[in-house]
Amino acid sequence: MKVTVYATYDSVEDKVIKDRLVVVVDVLRATSTIITSLANGCKEVIPVVEIEEAMNLSKNYEKDAYLLAGERNALKIEGFDLSNSPAEYTKDMVEDRTIIFTTTNGTKAIRKAEGANEIILGALINAKAVSDYILSRGEDIVFICAGTEGKFSLDDIATVGAIIYRMDDGSGQLKLDDLGLVCRHIYREYKGNLESVFKKSRHYNVLKKANYYNDILYCLKEDMISIVPEYTDGIVKIK
Amino acid sequence: MKVTVYATYDSVEDKVIKDRLVVVVDVLRATSTIITSLANGCKEVIPVVEIEEAMNLSKNYEKDAYLLAGERNALKIEGFDLSNSPAEYTKDMVEDRTIIFTTTNGTKAIRKAEGANEIILGALINAKAVSDYILSRGEDIVFICAGTEGKFSLDDIATVGAIIYRMDDGSGQLKLDDLGLVCRHIYREYKGNLESVFKKSRHYNVLKKANYYNDILYCLKEDMISIVPEYTDGIVKIK
Repeated sequence: MKVTVYATYDSVEDKVIKDRLVVVVDVLRATSTIITSLANGCKEVIPVVEIEEAMNLSKNYEKDAYLLAGERNALKIEGFDLSNSPAEYTKDMVEDRTIIFTTTNGTKAIRKAEGANEIILGALINAKAVSDYILSRGEDIVFICAGTEGKFSLDDIATVGAIIYRMDDGSGQLKLDDLGLVCRHIYREYKGNLESVFKKSRHYNVLKKANYYNDILYCLKEDMISIVPEYTDGIVKIK
Repeated sequence: MKVTVYATYDSVEDKVIKDRLVVVVDVLRATSTIITSLANGCKEVIPVVEIEEAMNLSKNYEKDAYLLAGERNALKIEGFDLSNSPAEYTKDMVEDRTIIFTTTNGTKAIRKAEGANEIILGALINAKAVSDYILSRGEDIVFICAGTEGKFSLDDIATVGAIIYRMDDGSGQLKLDDLGLVCRHIYREYKGNLESVFKKSRHYNVLKKANYYNDILYCLKEDMISIVPEYTDGIVKIK
C-alpha cells in the first residue's frame, strides 16, 4: 500500500489524487471540529471557501435549520453563529442542523481534494477510526495536510504520523514516501507527549495567544471518537 | 535570526525570498556537483533549465572553453560532455572552463531563487562553509530544497538540517520555522549515519539503480570543501 503525503494543499497534484482515497487533515482545528460536530449529531457540514459564499448558501435554509460557522485569523467571523472552536459544537447546539463552515486553511484543503475517488477527514481524535477504515479499503492512500497559510505545519505532520503509525503492522506492506517517513518518525518519537511537538509549531502559538489553549488540549486527545467523516458532492457526513 | 525552509522549489513564495539571503540545496547531486566543479577550478557554472537553452548558449563559446553538462532522469544527456556525477568534474576536465549545466530539479531551484538579494549554494560537502557564511551575515535566511520532481526529499531535508545544526550555538537566537525544526531534528538524530536517512529516500534508490552509488557516498562527505558558490546574474562563481 503506497502512502503519499502532501504538507500543504497547494502542493497537491491533481493527477496524483485522481481516483484515489484521500485523507484531509487540519488538526488545529477544522477537521477536529467537523468530526466533533458530526459525532454530536449535526446533520451535515458544508465546507465553503469564502465568507460571502457561506452567507449566500445560508439563505436556502430555514432559520433554525443551519448554523454559520468558522474563522478568519483563528477568530469568529462577524455575524456567524459559531467560531472554529470544537468546544462550541455541543449536542444542544448542533443536533440535526446543517453547519455551513469556512476556515482559513481547512476548507480549502477539503475542496482541493475534489477529483479524488473518496475523501475522508482525519484528526487525532479519530486517528484509529481513520486508520481502520484505510486498512479495510486496502488501497493506496494520499494524505493532504492543510498546513498553515501555505506552509508546512508540525501539528498536521504529527497527526498524519499518528494515523500511519496505527496502520503499520510491521509487515512492511506500507510503502511510505519521504514525507510519510518523516510523519511516522515524528509521531513515534513524541507519542507519549505530542503537545511538545505541537508547541513547536507557529500555529500552536497563534491559537494559544487567542485564548484557545483548551481547544489545543482537546484536539490532542487521540482516538476519542470513532466516526469517519466523508466529503461527497460538497457535503461532509458520517461515512 | 529567522530561518525559513521550503521543501520544494515550486512552493517558494516570491514575497518571502525578496531581498533575502537564500541557500539552494540539491545534495543529490546538482549543488554537490557545482561546488566540486568550482573547487576544482572551473571558471563558472551557468545553470539553465532546458537542454535546448544549454545547446544554444554553448554556441557563444570557443570549442575548448566550455563543457555541456547535466542530466535527465539521473542520466547523461545525449551529446553532452559530462553527466551530473561529481566524479567527472576533475581538475583536468573543468579547470578554467565554463560549465553550461542543466538538471531535472537543481537548476530549476536555483532559477526559482531569482529575486532574492543573494543566492548561495549548499550541500553536505560545504555545510560548515555555508553555515559560517550565513552567521557572518547575521541575516534572516531562506533555504530552498530542490526536492525530487516537486516532492519533499529526505536527502535535502537532512542537508538543510546539517547546515542549521552548525549554525546553532544554543543561544536561542535561531528562530526556526516548522520545517526547519524537522530538518534539525532529522540531522541531530542521524548525524553519525546520514546514509541511513538518505537510504529511505526515493531519490537514493533511483541513483543507486543507475550505478551512482559512489556519487551518493561522495555527496555524504561533510565539510570537505570550504567554498561557498554564489549565483549572480545567471552565473555561479565562488563567493
